[in-house]
Amino acid sequence: MRGTVLYAPGDVRFEERDDPKILKPTDAIIRIAATCVCGSDLWPYRGANPVTQPTPMGHEYCGMVEQVGSAVGSVKPGQFVIGSFFASDNTCPNCRAGYQSGCQHAEFVGGAQAPILRVPLADGTLVTTPDAPPDDLIPNLLALSDVMGTGWFAAEAANVKPGRTVAVVGDGAVGLLGILSAKLMGAERIIAMSRHESRQKLAREFGATDIVTERGDEGVARIKELTGGIGADSVLECVGTQESMLQAIRSTRQGGYVGYVGVPHGVELDGQQLFYAHVHLHGGPAPVRRFLPELIELVFNRTINPGKVFDLTLPLDRVAEGYRAMDERRAIKTLLRP
Amino acid sequence: MRGTVLYAPGDVRFEERDDPKILKPTDAIIRIAATCVCGSDLWPYRGANPVTQPTPMGHEYCGMVEQVGSAVGSVKPGQFVIGSFFASDNTCPNCRAGYQSGCQHAEFVGGAQAPILRVPLADGTLVTTPDAPPDDLIPNLLALSDVMGTGWFAAEAANVKPGRTVAVVGDGAVGLLGILSAKLMGAERIIAMSRHESRQKLAREFGATDIVTERGDEGVARIKELTGGIGADSVLECVGTQESMLQAIRSTRQGGYVGYVGVPHGVELDGQQLFYAHVHLHGGPAPVRRFLPELIELVFNRTINPGKVFDLTLPLDRVAEGYRAMDERRAIKTLLRP
Repeated sequence: MRGTVLYAPGDVRFEERDDPKILKPTDAIIRIAATCVCGSDLWPYRGANPVTQPTPMGHEYCGMVEQVGSAVGSVKPGQFVIGSFFASDNTCPNCRAGYQSGCQHAEFVGGAQAPILRVPLADGTLVTTPDAPPDDLIPNLLALSDVMGTGWFAAEAANVKPGRTVAVVGDGAVGLLGILSAKLMGAERIIAMSRHESRQKLAREFGATDIVTERGDEGVARIKELTGGIGADSVLECVGTQESMLQAIRSTRQGGYVGYVGVPHGVELDGQQLFYAHVHLHGGPAPVRRFLPELIELVFNRTINPGKVFDLTLPLDRVAEGYRAMDERRAIKTLLRP
Repeated sequence: MRGTVLYAPGDVRFEERDDPKILKPTDAIIRIAATCVCGSDLWPYRGANPVTQPTPMGHEYCGMVEQVGSAVGSVKPGQFVIGSFFASDNTCPNCRAGYQSGCQHAEFVGGAQAPILRVPLADGTLVTTPDAPPDDLIPNLLALSDVMGTGWFAAEAANVKPGRTVAVVGDGAVGLLGILSAKLMGAERIIAMSRHESRQKLAREFGATDIVTERGDEGVARIKELTGGIGADSVLECVGTQESMLQAIRSTRQGGYVGYVGVPHGVELDGQQLFYAHVHLHGGPAPVRRFLPELIELVFNRTINPGKVFDLTLPLDRVAEGYRAMDERRAIKTLLRP
C-alpha cells in the first residue's frame, strides 16, 4: 500500500510502505473509510516537535475490520468501527476510572493516513457502529476518533453545566467542537474567541452566542466585560500555547473551571498566579474511548454533525496538499478518502 | 497596646503600637481571646518573602467584639466571633460562588498577634459562636480562623469522598488538619507523608492509616506501591514548594484530584507534565469564611478538636519565642494568649 510519511518539517510524502499485519493476537487490521489531518500533526509539520526519523502519520480513523488476531473477541471482520488515537485495554484501573488515554498499556496509534491500519488492543480500543453507516455519516463518525471526543472532554473537564457561561479559546476543529459539546451540555452562553470569519460562522452554527476577536490582555478584558466583571464559569483551552493557556486561566471566574486539551508547547504555569486565580484545572489527552458509544449514538440519530469541521476533502494521495491548506489556515480540517 | 512586628528575617518584636480604631463604618474592633503563629508567617521570618518595612504580624484570631462601625449590622459588642485572614463582603459574585478569599473587596487582615484587632467588612467576615465558648474550646475555635479551614479546603478541592484513598503532602498544622478533614469526609485510607515522630502521632490520631516517610521520587514510588501501582484518588498539597507540588501531582492517579493550599514559593508547573498526569488541580487561598458556620458547629458539639495542633502555648509577649520554636520545628504551631 501507499501511506503518509513525514520526513522533515514541511516534507510530507505519500509513498510505498509495507501493508500492516497482525503482530499480536490482540491486534485488528482495519480498511480505512476515511482519515484526516489533525491540528497536532501540524506541530512536527511546522518544526515545533522534532522529526527524528521518517514518521508514518495519522491517528484518526474509522473503517471496516478486515482481520483480527486470535485473542480478539469483541469485533470481527466486516464490522464498521471507530477507535481513538490511544489504543487502550479498557480494563486496567485507569481505563475503568474513565481515563483510557492513560491506560497502563496505552499505545499510540500511528500511520492512519493510509488505506490500511493496524490497531493494537482491538477489544479495548474499537467501538462498533449499530449498522454499516450511510456514506454521509462517515465524516461525522471520523470526527469522533479525535476532535469531537477531545472537544467533548474539554467541555466536560471545564465542568460545563446547563445555564452556565462558557468561553472557548481556540477556533480550530477541537475548539469548534468544544462549542458544539458545550451547547449539547446545556450552556446558556458560549463565547467563541476567534478572528477568522469562516470559523466564526461555524462557531455560531455550533452554538456560540458571542464572538470575541481580541487576544491576550484585551481578550481577557472582553470576557470580563461580557460576564459582569467576574469571568466565565467554564473555559475550554484548545490550543496549547503559553498565551492561550494564560488567556483561559485569566478568563475564568474565581472557583470556575478550565478544561485544557491543546497539547502544551512551551507552557510553564507560575504557581502563585495559578494559586490566586482560584480556578479548577483539568485536561490532558482526551479519553476519547469513554465517549465513543454516546457520541456514535448522537451521530447515528443525527443529533450532531461534527463532520462539518471538514471543510476540505481530498483523495488520500493528495495528503501533502491537505497539510499545506491547514498550515496556511485555508482549511479548518482536511478529510482524506483512500 | 503592644503588638507583634516583623522588622527583618528572624527579627520579631513585641512593641508599643497605636490601638486599632474604627476607620470605616464597616469595621469592627475585636479583643483577641487567642491568636497564633502561622506556617506562612515563617516565609518572611525565614527571608523567603522580602520584608520591605516593619510589618504587623498575625492573621488568625477569635475574640469578643468590642466596638462596631455605624454600618455593621450582623455582629455587636459582647459577641464572640471568628473570622478568616481575608476580610470579605460575602455578597459579591465571588463570595456568593463560595470563594470569599477572592472577594472583589477582599482585604488581608494583618496585625492579629496583638490584644486588639481591627477587622474590615465585619458583617461579611465575622461569624458568631452560638454562645460565649468555654475556655477549653478557644484553641479549637482559633484553629478555624485559618489552618482548619485551609485543611478542609484542601480536602474539598481534592474531592475527598467516602471510601477514597487520600495522600497528604506536608505534616504542618494544615496538613494534619487536612487529614482530620479527609477523615470527616469519609476517606477510607489516609496516607500521611511525614518524617517527624510527634507529627506522625497526631496524624494517626486525626485519622491517618499509613505513614510514608520517603520524599520525592521515593515518596511517589511508595504511594504507588500502596495504591496498586496507580496513585491516590485525592492528594492534599500543604507545603507550597516545587518538590511538594510535584510530589502531590505525581502521587495522584489518572483522573484523580490534587487540592493545593500551600502558598507556592518558586513553583513552576511544566504544561506537558501536567497534561499527561491527567489530574484535576484546584486550590488557592482557602475561602475559610464559607466553612466557618459548619466548622464552628463541629467544634461546639465536640466532634473535632483541631486545636490539638497547638503543641506550644505562650503568653503573647513571648511571641518571638513562638516563631523560633516553629522555625526550628520544635513546635507544630504556637498558640499565643494576650
